[in-house]
Amino acid sequence: MSKFEVPYKIYLDENEIPQSWYNVRADMKNKPAPLIHPGTLQPLKFEDMQPIFCDELIRQELDDVNPYIPIPQEVQDFYKMYRPSPLTHAVFLEKALDTPAHIFYKFEGNNTSGSHKLNSAIAQAYYAKKQGLKGVTTETGAGQWGTALSMACSYFGLDCKVFMVKVSYEQKPFRREVMRTYGASVTPSPSMDTNIGRKINEEFPGTTGSLGCAISEAVEAATSTPGYRYELGSVLNQVLLHQSIIGLETKAACDKYGIKPDIIIGCAGGGSNLGGLISPFMGEKLRGEADYQIIAVEPASCPSLTRGKFAYDFCDTGKVCPMAKMYTLGHDFIPSANHAGGLRYHGMSPVLSQLYHDGYMEARAVEQTSVFEAAVQFARVEGILPAPESSHAIRAAIDEALKCKETGEEKTIILGLTGTGYFDLKAYEQYNNGTMSDYIPTDEDLAKGFATIPDINL
Amino acid sequence: MSKFEVPYKIYLDENEIPQSWYNVRADMKNKPAPLIHPGTLQPLKFEDMQPIFCDELIRQELDDVNPYIPIPQEVQDFYKMYRPSPLTHAVFLEKALDTPAHIFYKFEGNNTSGSHKLNSAIAQAYYAKKQGLKGVTTETGAGQWGTALSMACSYFGLDCKVFMVKVSYEQKPFRREVMRTYGASVTPSPSMDTNIGRKINEEFPGTTGSLGCAISEAVEAATSTPGYRYELGSVLNQVLLHQSIIGLETKAACDKYGIKPDIIIGCAGGGSNLGGLISPFMGEKLRGEADYQIIAVEPASCPSLTRGKFAYDFCDTGKVCPMAKMYTLGHDFIPSANHAGGLRYHGMSPVLSQLYHDGYMEARAVEQTSVFEAAVQFARVEGILPAPESSHAIRAAIDEALKCKETGEEKTIILGLTGTGYFDLKAYEQYNNGTMSDYIPTDEDLAKGFATIPDINL
Repeated sequence: MSKFEVPYKIYLDENEIPQSWYNVRADMKNKPAPLIHPGTLQPLKFEDMQPIFCDELIRQELDDVNPYIPIPQEVQDFYKMYRPSPLTHAVFLEKALDTPAHIFYKFEGNNTSGSHKLNSAIAQAYYAKKQGLKGVTTETGAGQWGTALSMACSYFGLDCKVFMVKVSYEQKPFRREVMRTYGASVTPSPSMDTNIGRKINEEFPGTTGSLGCAISEAVEAATSTPGYRYELGSVLNQVLLHQSIIGLETKAACDKYGIKPDIIIGCAGGGSNLGGLISPFMGEKLRGEADYQIIAVEPASCPSLTRGKFAYDFCDTGKVCPMAKMYTLGHDFIPSANHAGGLRYHGMSPVLSQLYHDGYMEARAVEQTSVFEAAVQFARVEGILPAPESSHAIRAAIDEALKCKETGEEKTIILGLTGTGYFDLKAYEQYNNGTMSDYIPTDEDLAKGFATIPDINL
Repeated sequence: MSKFEVPYKIYLDENEIPQSWYNVRADMKNKPAPLIHPGTLQPLKFEDMQPIFCDELIRQELDDVNPYIPIPQEVQDFYKMYRPSPLTHAVFLEKALDTPAHIFYKFEGNNTSGSHKLNSAIAQAYYAKKQGLKGVTTETGAGQWGTALSMACSYFGLDCKVFMVKVSYEQKPFRREVMRTYGASVTPSPSMDTNIGRKINEEFPGTTGSLGCAISEAVEAATSTPGYRYELGSVLNQVLLHQSIIGLETKAACDKYGIKPDIIIGCAGGGSNLGGLISPFMGEKLRGEADYQIIAVEPASCPSLTRGKFAYDFCDTGKVCPMAKMYTLGHDFIPSANHAGGLRYHGMSPVLSQLYHDGYMEARAVEQTSVFEAAVQFARVEGILPAPESSHAIRAAIDEALKCKETGEEKTIILGLTGTGYFDLKAYEQYNNGTMSDYIPTDEDLAKGFATIPDINL
């Protein structure tokens, strides 16, 4: 493939935007393990989840049979606001690296939420509205998911109550302000508004919060308020389903222009972007129709895939949520304070965990100064200031492209560029000032988290 | 025209991106008055400008004859990074307003600088590089131009020294950090690095700076440093030339889909976006081939077109720059401290000033709480958080669409959406908290500025 046979940026036509999501579970021989009830250890049934999630979203959560789920027309209409997202040929980066590799990135940051999170937020808000609910609750860490859900709820006229990890609430007042502009209420977590929040504040005075704790608060707020449900932006099967739009568009663009990826790279926190990006490619791999090298990139400071245990664990700190079988660092694990940006969840999508366990993808952990080095290099040549999360994928893509330079291989690499770094400039400032540090937890550090993983063998 | 005959977002193909800029001066019967030397009052010649500007940019500044200037290949390559920008059919806004009007917006915010400023920055950096210069200096207020020039200089390996109005430097640390990420040096203005900066600091201790003052500093720094020139992001003829890419793309998209605008609306500070957006349409109007209602929208707190004088004035506070004939509030005019965002320049592009003076366009002033009201309405339905500057155009477009609702007219409105509001969330916070205020200068307030306009009749 010549470097210039395809347009620099591929925008699908509106009529080429996929009209169904793809459910990779339908093609998995080993299905992801079901969510279980922490008391009975029995798989959760539809009725068990009704107090927490919208009915239709529960059906999607439980569906591991149907490969395609039609995207409701109202959601398709909203997608038109910011989709299709471009698949961009990184010619400037290739030139800077002097590599024979071909690098493409699927950029999901061209919307006000600044990331791919909107793809699932609008679907979840739609089903909540359709069920006649009054509002939804959620948690947010770095702020991308909270912003996305605020936008989606504003569009459908739903209340949106966001519990924002306290440290982010304080360090990212502008993230908070975007959510408020979209009419959401934003509460720093742990708060004094919920039982679990009060309990955590009492046990750990001065705590700056964690994602696991904010999830507990949001779930409690949803289940204790009539007409509300809880919505989550990652980890869940339904989220990967909605995010498959990323991969489906990428695949359509590749097929249209004859691009054949060898390597597909995505960052992985809870798995929402990676799971969406790879889904149709993974489907081909699972069906034996094609092969791809698929790489999950995670922070060395929160290495759930590369150093975690594949086990049933709680999804939240307060243990109010169901348990999931996943790669986990233990539900009490909180990444080191010097960790910037998202990708700080202790667990991982059960779908991705199973696929990784079964050898369909690999994982690697990278340190944050090398991630920001890649981010700045990318920003300067490709003109997009990437989110710290996305920059993990950039790091790995650059590393692969440099390997190609050594071997002379013309591999085609696709990376998921999840979003922009406009709200992460504190971290860029640290990097620019040379004050950013790395942290790799020791085995002893991890052992403390592992000790909290319950001993369940199903 | 049915509301859905055109795609929601029109992206031109890469080969449809214009390859020449359009120079509206070629079609003006009354040419904009030349820049003059403040001492001799003589029109500046090429040699007079050489210490300040790059040679090729001076040629463009002086050229009021050639209608088309080819865009250098290197600049076209860079444009591909973020262009074509979409022309979006605002169907969600139309629905929310319940108007028979058709509203389109040309969105220039899909690049890391967050605005249209990059269109001229890359051209100016290119000519500086081509001339073998070491670096450039500039000023920035709200920060969009400084960010754009930093990105452009990084691309061509030029030094970039930015004087940032002190109040913005302090209130917008993240803007500064984006510039630093692109390798620029950023100095709060007035600084102690220049004679004029020291003088202003001495005369007005504790001053938070102004655009006019930062311009003086940047010009002094350029002319006193070998291998440097000064570059400016608005007002100048060359800037309107480069920004014509906005209008040319808009016109190409309109022609491709049979969209016939009745009204074209842009915000106006120094005129860079408005001048670019309207240029090919204005060309048709000047040549008598078509008619359009063209509306410049400016802040009521800085009303250069609607309440200023059409006269020769200094372009900067320190009077180190040439003088331009333009609508001006006086070179000492500084908008009220409660004014948020850009559009705070005391003057106006000489091209637009002449066109306005000759009746080819109209102008209106709007107050900022009504501007933010429009911004939030737009953000919620169209999914883009607009810059305060852009929101002036949104305000006027909504007003025109509501008039159509009353009269039943199906007018087609195109508005220039210059950029995103990610770095303006302090202002959104004020609006969300209900603490934003309006300010309209009294005639007495304006009289003080007018008193500083020199009495020159050429």
